[in-house]
Amino acid sequence: MFETAELGRKISRQEFKAQVPQLRTELLELQQQLRTADFSVIVVFAGVDGAGKSETVDVLNEWMDPRGLLTRAFDPPSPEEQERPEFWRYWLALPPKGRIGMYLSSWYSQPLMDLVYGEIDQASFDQSLNRITTFEKELADDGTLILKFWMHLGKKAQKKRLDALEKDPLTRWRVTKSEKQHWKMYEAFEAVADRLLHKTNMGEAPWYIVEGADHNYRTLSVATLLRDAIHRHLERRAAVGEKVSAKKTARVETKQPHTVLSRLDMTQKVPRAEYELFLEKYQGKLHRLTREAKARQLSTILVFEGVDAAGKGGAIHRLTAAMDARLYQVIPIAAPTDEERAQHYLWRFWRHLPRAGRVTIFDRSWYGRVLVERVEGFADDAAWRRAYAEINDFEEQLVEHGTVLVKYWEHITEEEQLRRFESRQQTPYKSYKLTPEDWRNRDKWDVYEQAVNDMVAYTSTNFAPWTLVEGNDKYFARLKVLRMLCERLGAALSRH
Amino acid sequence: MFETAELGRKISRQEFKAQVPQLRTELLELQQQLRTADFSVIVVFAGVDGAGKSETVDVLNEWMDPRGLLTRAFDPPSPEEQERPEFWRYWLALPPKGRIGMYLSSWYSQPLMDLVYGEIDQASFDQSLNRITTFEKELADDGTLILKFWMHLGKKAQKKRLDALEKDPLTRWRVTKSEKQHWKMYEAFEAVADRLLHKTNMGEAPWYIVEGADHNYRTLSVATLLRDAIHRHLERRAAVGEKVSAKKTARVETKQPHTVLSRLDMTQKVPRAEYELFLEKYQGKLHRLTREAKARQLSTILVFEGVDAAGKGGAIHRLTAAMDARLYQVIPIAAPTDEERAQHYLWRFWRHLPRAGRVTIFDRSWYGRVLVERVEGFADDAAWRRAYAEINDFEEQLVEHGTVLVKYWEHITEEEQLRRFESRQQTPYKSYKLTPEDWRNRDKWDVYEQAVNDMVAYTSTNFAPWTLVEGNDKYFARLKVLRMLCERLGAALSRH
Repeated sequence: MFETAELGRKISRQEFKAQVPQLRTELLELQQQLRTADFSVIVVFAGVDGAGKSETVDVLNEWMDPRGLLTRAFDPPSPEEQERPEFWRYWLALPPKGRIGMYLSSWYSQPLMDLVYGEIDQASFDQSLNRITTFEKELADDGTLILKFWMHLGKKAQKKRLDALEKDPLTRWRVTKSEKQHWKMYEAFEAVADRLLHKTNMGEAPWYIVEGADHNYRTLSVATLLRDAIHRHLERRAAVGEKVSAKKTARVETKQPHTVLSRLDMTQKVPRAEYELFLEKYQGKLHRLTREAKARQLSTILVFEGVDAAGKGGAIHRLTAAMDARLYQVIPIAAPTDEERAQHYLWRFWRHLPRAGRVTIFDRSWYGRVLVERVEGFADDAAWRRAYAEINDFEEQLVEHGTVLVKYWEHITEEEQLRRFESRQQTPYKSYKLTPEDWRNRDKWDVYEQAVNDMVAYTSTNFAPWTLVEGNDKYFARLKVLRMLCERLGAALSRH
Repeated sequence: MFETAELGRKISRQEFKAQVPQLRTELLELQQQLRTADFSVIVVFAGVDGAGKSETVDVLNEWMDPRGLLTRAFDPPSPEEQERPEFWRYWLALPPKGRIGMYLSSWYSQPLMDLVYGEIDQASFDQSLNRITTFEKELADDGTLILKFWMHLGKKAQKKRLDALEKDPLTRWRVTKSEKQHWKMYEAFEAVADRLLHKTNMGEAPWYIVEGADHNYRTLSVATLLRDAIHRHLERRAAVGEKVSAKKTARVETKQPHTVLSRLDMTQKVPRAEYELFLEKYQGKLHRLTREAKARQLSTILVFEGVDAAGKGGAIHRLTAAMDARLYQVIPIAAPTDEERAQHYLWRFWRHLPRAGRVTIFDRSWYGRVLVERVEGFADDAAWRRAYAEINDFEEQLVEHGTVLVKYWEHITEEEQLRRFESRQQTPYKSYKLTPEDWRNRDKWDVYEQAVNDMVAYTSTNFAPWTLVEGNDKYFARLKVLRMLCERLGAALSRH
């Protein structure tokens, strides 16, 4: 597949100089437009050593407004990075909307090197590429423009370059040991690169193969492709924006008679004496389990979702009371900050993933996408529908990394909710919990119930099943939450 | 100093129950007011094991709205935390405005344990306490309300508690080995605690000693003190807010004839041929030095400040062109995000400190406080005046940690600036760089020059001196920037 990139194409100094001013102006103008656009741009640079990857990034940094650019390169993961799933650091390094992120040694480097050096077999290589295409697709679905440049250099051309650099004492430092070694392994790299490019060449994130031997040619190629892609994407996004707002108003909800919630036995109860006995028992157990999990570097993530006033806060409190305050963090999810709004909706959850051995409790979570955002129309139809798959993929990465993930839906009946709302109104120190929005949500009970039903249906995977908690009786609910966590943690520790 | 906390004070269950509803309501109401206030609250819990620190935090979490609270506890620093100055993790864990941060095992834990266990001597203990008081004072000056609770328990009371917990199989897990050991070292802890409390008891961040033996007494004490402090602070801040806005309008600038800038020799030049030769030489040198710094875990922070159009971008570009893209990050400082605005102005710089061996380049920096914020009146008089000391303290922490810190002021004359503005206007791909604000700033040339003069005078310390760069000739300026960095890095590596 690299034949077209060994043609010896060149652009003369004169022609280059003639083209640059216009191109720079266009790039800068597009950057200005991009600043207020609702998407970010990701540019991946990969390819053969010495084919001008970092030189090209350097030129782009010079030509464009550096305040709108961010350049990243990833070393092998640090100990703290290894405490999270592999893609954690890639998520955190994404550019916010309106900006361009340029990646040298990106998520492609590790799998490529690992296969070339025989650290992994082809099956796990392919698996890594799958993970990458899912990642890029999610970003593309969110509107991100992704371009990937494979900078190529034939074996002979590379040798020529290395020799020339080495002869000059001023540039000799550029020729490192690993570059020389890679040249000797040229064929192995080429075979792996070929597979990598074919497997990850998607419509939403295409590879552009660029002949890298001539500075002028490769620079103009990359800059022109980048210019055209941003230009097209700005136009396309503007068109999509109009369509979406048209769609929103036309949204209709079909109501279904039975849901997974309507089949819960909401009469289950626990007497007070029994509750107190078991509460103490489970809290003691949970304390020991979380300490052991800390010692053995096992992380836990808890998700609490539920009907308003179903007792999420009370249940969370019974868990935290049993844990060392050093070990857990409660993350309440409300409106996103502007830094969060400028990213994919999953970004704000990636940033809070716990270090090894800790517990993170999300009081509401990424499921807002398929609950409130769906019901209130904050996310358009396509967005919340594809969120099920995105969420499953996210959770799979957590579980594959070894994290214990427990998801609770705290449920109460409509009648019980009314009773609790009225009681909150009458208790001064509880009244702050009750907002006009709670009453409005109550009017949409059926729509929410349908959304919950779909959520459970689509995201109760075998690696991350939902735990539905019958919450009309608080004692019953709290014990169920505690017991389930102890079971899951205990099982994970015995496997760990 | 602990006699007053061994009086055996108690509050009966009845009285406790009678007082709680009113107190909770008041705390919740204050929390509501706090949400829109312009300050955060820091509550430090320290004291004797078993005196109810975490139990009290737990009760407050139950009584108050958990969405406005954040509870933190600090383990011994992780490898990644050790790559930054000690206070990095404390800065990043600060609550944003409108919220309350509660700290178990805070910045006081490490020095206290270290002195008790003989890891450090009393002089370094006192030094640590100085660092702490400076930290707390800076936060208090920014409006933060700081309360520190020392939870106390007499030696006998503690023994009684441990015995009772151990007798009951359900609570036995609470008695850890280290708690037993600490009980045996009671007198040593008491002596160190006494010194710690005296040395760090400041008006802006007072210690409250609370007798911890009785749950009801200590809970009501802490909650009442917290309520009163928040109440007072809300009133005081409202009053301060009015005064400040009155002051702003009355601000007057005194102009001085000579400044450190007027004495620069702005005629210095380098011919093109010489420039190209030395550029290549210094870039090669810088490349080797930054690689060595990476290998030896030496971090570098560069600060670029300067007159508009003085060539900061061009100079930065000549540095980055010589460095491996994996090693550096350019942080352009523009308007803060809302997460940054909700914190002390230094927070946004703390968050970007480089890992060991990396280079962070700030394109504009914390000096905005004493430049644009001073000149435009964004910071009030007291705020920018105390910033000199705050900045010196910040930089001292960087340098003490071993970071190489180089600060450049890029300067050009008024005439040269005019020439460059006009040239930018005429070059299409440069015109984006020129904003109406640039012309407005030009009108305030004298005021800015005075601010720069003061900045250099007050913040050119022996550990972090300013490098003034005569920038009328770009070649001269770029070489000076490169040469200075090579010198400073080289010197640091030879000492390292």
